[in-house]
Amino acid sequence: MTEPRYDVIAIGNAVVDVIASCAEELIDELQLNRGGMTLIDEARADELYEAMPPAREVSGGSAANTLAGLSTLGLQCAFIGQVADDQLGKVFAHDMRATGIDFDTPVREGEPATGRVLIFVTPDGERTMNTFLGAGQFLPAVALDEDLIASAAILYLEGYLWDPEEPRSAMRRAIDVARQAGRKVAFTASESFVIERHGDDFRDLIERGLIDILFVNESELATLTGESDFQTGFDAVAAKVPVLVATRSERGAVAQANGERATVSAEPIDQVIDTTGAGDQFAAGFLSGYAKGAALEECLKRGAIAAAEVIVHYGPRPEADMKALMAARL
Amino acid sequence: MTEPRYDVIAIGNAVVDVIASCAEELIDELQLNRGGMTLIDEARADELYEAMPPAREVSGGSAANTLAGLSTLGLQCAFIGQVADDQLGKVFAHDMRATGIDFDTPVREGEPATGRVLIFVTPDGERTMNTFLGAGQFLPAVALDEDLIASAAILYLEGYLWDPEEPRSAMRRAIDVARQAGRKVAFTASESFVIERHGDDFRDLIERGLIDILFVNESELATLTGESDFQTGFDAVAAKVPVLVATRSERGAVAQANGERATVSAEPIDQVIDTTGAGDQFAAGFLSGYAKGAALEECLKRGAIAAAEVIVHYGPRPEADMKALMAARL
Repeated sequence: MTEPRYDVIAIGNAVVDVIASCAEELIDELQLNRGGMTLIDEARADELYEAMPPAREVSGGSAANTLAGLSTLGLQCAFIGQVADDQLGKVFAHDMRATGIDFDTPVREGEPATGRVLIFVTPDGERTMNTFLGAGQFLPAVALDEDLIASAAILYLEGYLWDPEEPRSAMRRAIDVARQAGRKVAFTASESFVIERHGDDFRDLIERGLIDILFVNESELATLTGESDFQTGFDAVAAKVPVLVATRSERGAVAQANGERATVSAEPIDQVIDTTGAGDQFAAGFLSGYAKGAALEECLKRGAIAAAEVIVHYGPRPEADMKALMAARL
Repeated sequence: MTEPRYDVIAIGNAVVDVIASCAEELIDELQLNRGGMTLIDEARADELYEAMPPAREVSGGSAANTLAGLSTLGLQCAFIGQVADDQLGKVFAHDMRATGIDFDTPVREGEPATGRVLIFVTPDGERTMNTFLGAGQFLPAVALDEDLIASAAILYLEGYLWDPEEPRSAMRRAIDVARQAGRKVAFTASESFVIERHGDDFRDLIERGLIDILFVNESELATLTGESDFQTGFDAVAAKVPVLVATRSERGAVAQANGERATVSAEPIDQVIDTTGAGDQFAAGFLSGYAKGAALEECLKRGAIAAAEVIVHYGPRPEADMKALMAARL
């Protein structure tokens, strides 16, 4: 097994977030799935955009956000994801590269456009996401640079991308490549609704020992296990994955790694502005510790610090000097 | 003279701002004109974007920003500006309409793309703008809806758009239409470098009494008059325009209207994040008072409140509930 060239390579949605703050009533009026992520087609995307308040555009995508956090924390990262040959595709690619991430998946010509997520942020800071996957749903397995995947210590995958068929096949192939190269596979379950659609697949991956590091939140854990008691569900999954990280919003997070267990409280913050990216940045913070062999407790603390930074401003990626922030808070 | 249908109609750049915070050194390294606005071609725009840190995209354009402020404050507004048939054009149009502004200038097919402004924000909050006008430079006089212009109490024009020939002709025509309809013409000088290029035109407009309300900052006033003493320059111009508003950054602002003079201090703020839009929102605040016949002092105070709101966050348009903010601070 050769020395890895990258700390983390991720496969994920390549989307631009379109973020607007909105009144509580608009969520009902537009019949949105409050707090969740709903897949929408282009017609619905146009309809919702029409009804959306003035917005800001920032690059997003769950795994891409996590990589942005990791890169900001000094890790070597590469990304695989599908954009179209359009302005939003250029924005996404620019922001990845400007963050120091290698991103060389060939652009896809023609329709559909680069994916976008219409995010309605209510006054409590909760985000309601409506995703038009666009070009991202056609990420083909052939777009995988297998040498690249084999050259990263950790392969990171997002559950959100399990919906469309081509990327799902690509991710399955990527898991094989990573495991054959002796690398770790990290997976974020993304959302309860995703697990409702693909729980059998996810449970199968876990049972077959194909996932080394699993990120879930409380409701995802419940959906995955069918167990309403957090502790029982956690124990059940922890028995099957080497590293399990479960985030619990303002109640902090719990992790178990190779039998050892640790918890962390949420970092104190003044006011939640936009929760978009909270889970993504928790994962980034955690992995930034894990990758360098930090103690489990420090990994969790890093996750909590990174998550606290991203929810006090709009947008899913860090804006602060994260290295300095970690140094100050750890 | 019929009752106006709109409070303000503006003709301006239709651009999307691409805003990144950056280290001081990058300004030198890229040989940018610190604190100013530089017109660039598409090749230079690509070059600068390549070198730019991760960015956020928000709709901009000086006059468009002022209208966004005015609309948020409850005024009826319409906008004339040129976008292309592309994603950024859709973003710009969406944000205008979602702010409640009527915007019906036909989209321009083909190249160039919708204009964009690459804005580098240094740690002191100062913005350095690099503008690729794109489709905006081809706003034709025929795109003017003359009935629309005649139906607004105030026609608002930005100096930035005086550079390209077609919009300049369109704005000259618009001034004629507005004056023939007995409306007021407001003009923002935009920037010293613009005045260096077009000072003769601007002075001619002033001498001929075609401008009713003029917005300048200190350095623009100096360039316009060739007078380094603020007071002397102010007096000279104030003798020639019915309403003169001169902003002085952290030293507040001075205005004279029909012989009466008033001053205002800058509003206290915690920390400047991004000065983009400060002048635009000052103009919006001022005009929101002027349009309803408020006292000169209140007009200035409104300008100061609106400017203070926009410089404590990224982006050139208000994010707060501006009506509530005005009610609380006035």
